[in-house]
Amino acid sequence: MYDVDAIRRDFPILAREVNGKPLVYLDNGASAQKPQVVIDAITRGYAEEYANVHRGLHYLSNLATDRYEAVRGKLQRFLNAAHEDEIIFNTGTTMGINLVAYGWAMPRFEPGDEIVLSVMEHHANIVPWHFLRERQGAVLKWVEPEADGSLDPQAVLDAIGPRTRLIAITHMSNVLGTKVDVAAICAGARAQGVPVLVDGSQAAVHMPVDVQEIGCDFYAITGHKLYGPSGSGAIYIRKDRLDEMRPFIGGGDMIREVHRDRVIYNEAPHKFEAGTPGIVSQIGLGAALDYLAGIGMERIAAHEADLRDYAQSRLGALNWLQLQGTAPGKGAIFSFTLDGAAHAHDISTVLDKKGVAVRAGQHCAGPLMEHLGLSATCRASFAMYNTRAEVDALIEALELCHELFS
Amino acid sequence: MYDVDAIRRDFPILAREVNGKPLVYLDNGASAQKPQVVIDAITRGYAEEYANVHRGLHYLSNLATDRYEAVRGKLQRFLNAAHEDEIIFNTGTTMGINLVAYGWAMPRFEPGDEIVLSVMEHHANIVPWHFLRERQGAVLKWVEPEADGSLDPQAVLDAIGPRTRLIAITHMSNVLGTKVDVAAICAGARAQGVPVLVDGSQAAVHMPVDVQEIGCDFYAITGHKLYGPSGSGAIYIRKDRLDEMRPFIGGGDMIREVHRDRVIYNEAPHKFEAGTPGIVSQIGLGAALDYLAGIGMERIAAHEADLRDYAQSRLGALNWLQLQGTAPGKGAIFSFTLDGAAHAHDISTVLDKKGVAVRAGQHCAGPLMEHLGLSATCRASFAMYNTRAEVDALIEALELCHELFS
Repeated sequence: MYDVDAIRRDFPILAREVNGKPLVYLDNGASAQKPQVVIDAITRGYAEEYANVHRGLHYLSNLATDRYEAVRGKLQRFLNAAHEDEIIFNTGTTMGINLVAYGWAMPRFEPGDEIVLSVMEHHANIVPWHFLRERQGAVLKWVEPEADGSLDPQAVLDAIGPRTRLIAITHMSNVLGTKVDVAAICAGARAQGVPVLVDGSQAAVHMPVDVQEIGCDFYAITGHKLYGPSGSGAIYIRKDRLDEMRPFIGGGDMIREVHRDRVIYNEAPHKFEAGTPGIVSQIGLGAALDYLAGIGMERIAAHEADLRDYAQSRLGALNWLQLQGTAPGKGAIFSFTLDGAAHAHDISTVLDKKGVAVRAGQHCAGPLMEHLGLSATCRASFAMYNTRAEVDALIEALELCHELFS
Repeated sequence: MYDVDAIRRDFPILAREVNGKPLVYLDNGASAQKPQVVIDAITRGYAEEYANVHRGLHYLSNLATDRYEAVRGKLQRFLNAAHEDEIIFNTGTTMGINLVAYGWAMPRFEPGDEIVLSVMEHHANIVPWHFLRERQGAVLKWVEPEADGSLDPQAVLDAIGPRTRLIAITHMSNVLGTKVDVAAICAGARAQGVPVLVDGSQAAVHMPVDVQEIGCDFYAITGHKLYGPSGSGAIYIRKDRLDEMRPFIGGGDMIREVHRDRVIYNEAPHKFEAGTPGIVSQIGLGAALDYLAGIGMERIAAHEADLRDYAQSRLGALNWLQLQGTAPGKGAIFSFTLDGAAHAHDISTVLDKKGVAVRAGQHCAGPLMEHLGLSATCRASFAMYNTRAEVDALIEALELCHELFS
């Protein structure tokens, strides 16, 4: 049985009030809150076990290195990667996708080579490809979602042409909640020799992920959405692609030898991890993964499916509210606008007065907003610790908005 | 009066034992320990005040944004930058120098263009320039230190030729402790129109830094050496250079508009800060800067000068120990080897048994090691919380080494 009250007690911030009301934190799509075990891991990391990693031979350095490197195995198991060395540590999805753009794509793209993207991508999975367009003449080919926000895998595969060198696609839309059948896309793409990068920034938080089952070449995640520290993260890169990549960030740790006239680079994963990393943040991410493993991603997904159904039925009953994205089986992420003059920013401000934290704006998804014909939406995004009572609090606050602005 | 005992009590890890002995932490050149105020700032950041920055309109997001952005002003004051917008947040020196390499140098270097480096540079200030050599035909010109480890500013200026496009130089050697007169180098370079990047990773920890007085174009620092969290940091980039740079990391926050066929980038500093940053780590760095400001960098420098003098006299009295680097006014960083067969790694292992944490190896400074004709050294590097008694503990442990290995 999923004891959401017990889970809530593990997250200290959830006990606080905002504007005199209990915090109803529904901005999880932007970043998730942290359980006490993560905060404790950070405190212990700095107060008892801190030193730089990989470099010392003394007790604290060895201890910190063991704690830090152990997170690689946790991430391997979390994503079911075949090899621990396929996990590259970084500071989040943005750095992961930039690594693929700079380390894999830039050295091999010719002018006119194409990248297939969905219109639902987050800017982190768009701007690095615009760099290739601006600097190397790459062509971005866009695939549009259906009216309900779902994405037909065949539409993505149909966009493949003789010049397609990469598909870069989200596993779950951060605006619509749509889950994308990335396994079908990977299977079809592989048959045509096209690599696939999956942006798992949202999906990995809300459902079990198995990169071998998906069959992707690259799978990017971020720690701060995954109940871990801000500045933690990783990307899975399948071994054959790793072997094709040149280094991206230059510095210590990613080299074997540095001379005046030449460099010999280290092996992966270290080749792609230059300089002193966010040691303790990454250790904190390990604590978050342990916490999630203790509860089980399947059970979290089931809890959030219940929240999704409940929220969808309650929001759907408000005939002055327009929901964006109602794809079957979607995640518990709801973007909406209200009838009348109420701007998304005004709505979120009223909600905030009631202690309900949602996000308003473009959600780092400019092309999707253009596709929807909207300048902004409000977004309520749920996580493992949210409750039906919080859905009710959202509805109550929205009803106040409707009264105020209609 | 500088109360080092009171300062030590501010750093919880310094109370611990290692191998049954009180910890004598002399690996500060690799990374510094954290005062309780930094740990508290992190805990408060996650347990009470966490949300993503720049994106929400709700209370916690605004609060986190205020806390996070306030660090920019703290860094401005710490480095005496003319404008807050000249401070670019990042994860440390490695990212700072890579930003300059990718964002400023790569778009403007032609084959045969030259970069002047000292042989004392850290790999973080070498490998990004090797990228330019390997990928764009840049030429690296190396300046050697004097026999005592000092670096003649004129030797650096003499290396400037008609093709020199950049000088990239450390402010303090992480191996020898040498302080470099970067102000003299910047003055001479500016007269010839050559920009200067200063690697302040070590120097900013041990002395007051004034980037306007130095007159540099770029000044890179790292948070984890500065008593802040691992994964925190910044680079100062003078406004005219910022205006010359193209974006490096692509993603959210660094854009103003993203369309299918074009991107409009944000203004600096945000243009160079893509994606969700290490929010709480950076807030922790702010707490470290407040802590340092409360004590005063001048007073810290004076304390460390005393430690340097004491350590230098005691180490200098060991006639079976070879000190590397005795430049006048150097920082309290001592690299050494021992007569006989004792490898640096063996020495550090023996020291560790006595609770004394030093580093052994190349110290991310391959070209300097080649210059010295050494494969490795031991390095004892001091910080604001170290004491004369710890120098004595180091000497005692070294005497044991000498007995064991001679």
